[in-house]
Amino acid sequence: MKFEILHTSSKSRARVGRIYTPHGVIDTPNFVAVGTNGTLKAIDNQTVHEIGLQLMFCNTYHLMLQPGTETIRDAGGLHKFMNRTLPVITDSGGFQVFSLAYGSVANELKSKGTKKTDGSVLKISEEGVLFRSYRDGKKILLTPESSIEAQKNLGADIIIPFDELPPYHIEKEALVQSLERTHRWEKRSLEAHLKNPQDQAMYAVIHGGIDEGLRKISCDFLGHLPFDGFAIGGSLGKNKPEMIGMLTDMMPLLPPEKPNHLLGIGDLESITACIPLGIDTFDSSYPTRAARHGMALTKNGPLNLTQGQQAKRLEPIERDCLCHTCRHFTVAYLNHLFKAREMTALTLTSIHNLHFMVELMRDYRERVASDLI
Amino acid sequence: MKFEILHTSSKSRARVGRIYTPHGVIDTPNFVAVGTNGTLKAIDNQTVHEIGLQLMFCNTYHLMLQPGTETIRDAGGLHKFMNRTLPVITDSGGFQVFSLAYGSVANELKSKGTKKTDGSVLKISEEGVLFRSYRDGKKILLTPESSIEAQKNLGADIIIPFDELPPYHIEKEALVQSLERTHRWEKRSLEAHLKNPQDQAMYAVIHGGIDEGLRKISCDFLGHLPFDGFAIGGSLGKNKPEMIGMLTDMMPLLPPEKPNHLLGIGDLESITACIPLGIDTFDSSYPTRAARHGMALTKNGPLNLTQGQQAKRLEPIERDCLCHTCRHFTVAYLNHLFKAREMTALTLTSIHNLHFMVELMRDYRERVASDLI
Repeated sequence: MKFEILHTSSKSRARVGRIYTPHGVIDTPNFVAVGTNGTLKAIDNQTVHEIGLQLMFCNTYHLMLQPGTETIRDAGGLHKFMNRTLPVITDSGGFQVFSLAYGSVANELKSKGTKKTDGSVLKISEEGVLFRSYRDGKKILLTPESSIEAQKNLGADIIIPFDELPPYHIEKEALVQSLERTHRWEKRSLEAHLKNPQDQAMYAVIHGGIDEGLRKISCDFLGHLPFDGFAIGGSLGKNKPEMIGMLTDMMPLLPPEKPNHLLGIGDLESITACIPLGIDTFDSSYPTRAARHGMALTKNGPLNLTQGQQAKRLEPIERDCLCHTCRHFTVAYLNHLFKAREMTALTLTSIHNLHFMVELMRDYRERVASDLI
Repeated sequence: MKFEILHTSSKSRARVGRIYTPHGVIDTPNFVAVGTNGTLKAIDNQTVHEIGLQLMFCNTYHLMLQPGTETIRDAGGLHKFMNRTLPVITDSGGFQVFSLAYGSVANELKSKGTKKTDGSVLKISEEGVLFRSYRDGKKILLTPESSIEAQKNLGADIIIPFDELPPYHIEKEALVQSLERTHRWEKRSLEAHLKNPQDQAMYAVIHGGIDEGLRKISCDFLGHLPFDGFAIGGSLGKNKPEMIGMLTDMMPLLPPEKPNHLLGIGDLESITACIPLGIDTFDSSYPTRAARHGMALTKNGPLNLTQGQQAKRLEPIERDCLCHTCRHFTVAYLNHLFKAREMTALTLTSIHNLHFMVELMRDYRERVASDLI
């Protein structure tokens, strides 16, 4: 992997770059769509290719349980298995094991920290995590080494070291211990990866929760290891201002010549706020999930396709949009498909939203290149 | 509408023809896919167009309740509303009102005729049927005239007169009365249609249940009215041999120079059996419904994509198939998508099955043209 910075804004830390991978170029800043099971929800990979999505995020945890990473390796790797010729990134599986156990940060905030686990995580030790498969109840030991082996089987262009996701409600002492173990796990992951790089790149995951001091320690520790890039993980606060504050402090601590990625955050507001901070890529299932709930993204804000007032709107979601959906179908028709509970509603709106994100990021790159951001 | 018979087999009553409509040609024999709500399940209309489906069946009953036929008329008609430039056929709404009330023939056979109605049909009179909308509970009066008005609003190339679907378990005397009323309703429908033909064609619906004598009366009565074609409706028996027996007797009684259509029957076995009897078009939701249950149609019979043994099959559903799915994805990947409960599984398999039907019918036409059937 090679990262080239084409331009850094005179106004902010925003930069325009290019990540070169074995499966092609990723222009940055960019949006990374989530295809958990090797497919986006409701859009097939050939259509995703035609929309021009440059990087797709797949989840090792899910692919490990179904169909199994050996099955995918035997099929020639994830790209071939799912018919994607453009770049792919996989995570380590750690996030899912822990977040399924603790619940999402949002749910945890609601529960005030009382619900710590659903019982699927059986044991966390220095070696790794023992958990129970939700599919067949089998016990699975996920370690830095087994996560990397799984990601070698998948063969994504960018892979991620095994880390621990601490719960949001955690005492400082426990957070320090979690961070130290995450660092040891990431180092072990890197070592396992470098024994057999297979032309893959590895991004570290910066942790430290909502503690600025620990975040600094994490940037410092991981920044001095030969990772190819840096992903920002864990909880960054309980709202957007806290997240932005944390990233404003953290971003200058990362090696500027390496690409970075903001894990699991890609709503429009966060993208707007984080590009000036120097974030290169964002992954999120927001645009496709919003589509399935009838929400179309537009330059004038989100449009609720299921509202009664849309039933007679005989124009596309956006007049100047060139996506498959806007070229062929009206808002009135999409409104009807949602009301009639037709699956085509979900697919057509997802196509529009993904196309919207691809075009939005192109626009951001142009604005950064022109020092407008 | 014009119907041209290009060739009649020397071996059977099978014929190859062309139906010319305002939205293009339908080659016969052909398969008619069902897009109840103005879309096939899981395949958008642009994709359906690209697959080459020549005739699509939409249900007036459903479109009347959502979004309403006036809404579709105001949008420029059904073709424009749903973005289909090729031919469309709509039914009268009668079948759905009655079958929702009585249940399907299959369910009725199971219930031994004890369950006659679900309460949605409030009153059947000479005027028409008063029923309650399942969407909002409103009372709706469907008559020959209101059904034709609805179908004028939709503007399909081929429309169908309002008829009564009698339950399978019915006494002879009641069946006679039902048939006579159906004939009066169809005649009223034809008269309403001919006041304002709007370039639409109308197919009569032959009734008479499983009574050969009544079927003959129906062919005779409707065959002498100026319908553009003939659809065969109602129950034709409780199994395929009974259906084939009935059609063998009936088909010679229909005007041979007019196109005919077998309503709601389009499984592979029935198509094979009925083409030699002279059936021109078949509609069925079978291929798309089978797809959603993981069943792919192939020249070697149905293939259950969800079976464990398909998990490692690194080839398309059919090696020589040129559909979107077979050109881009393997059986192993489709198996995975079904197991991971991804919607893309349903879409990709539906695309294959629809393409299979289009190619199958092309093959049938060639075989009839060569006197092989």
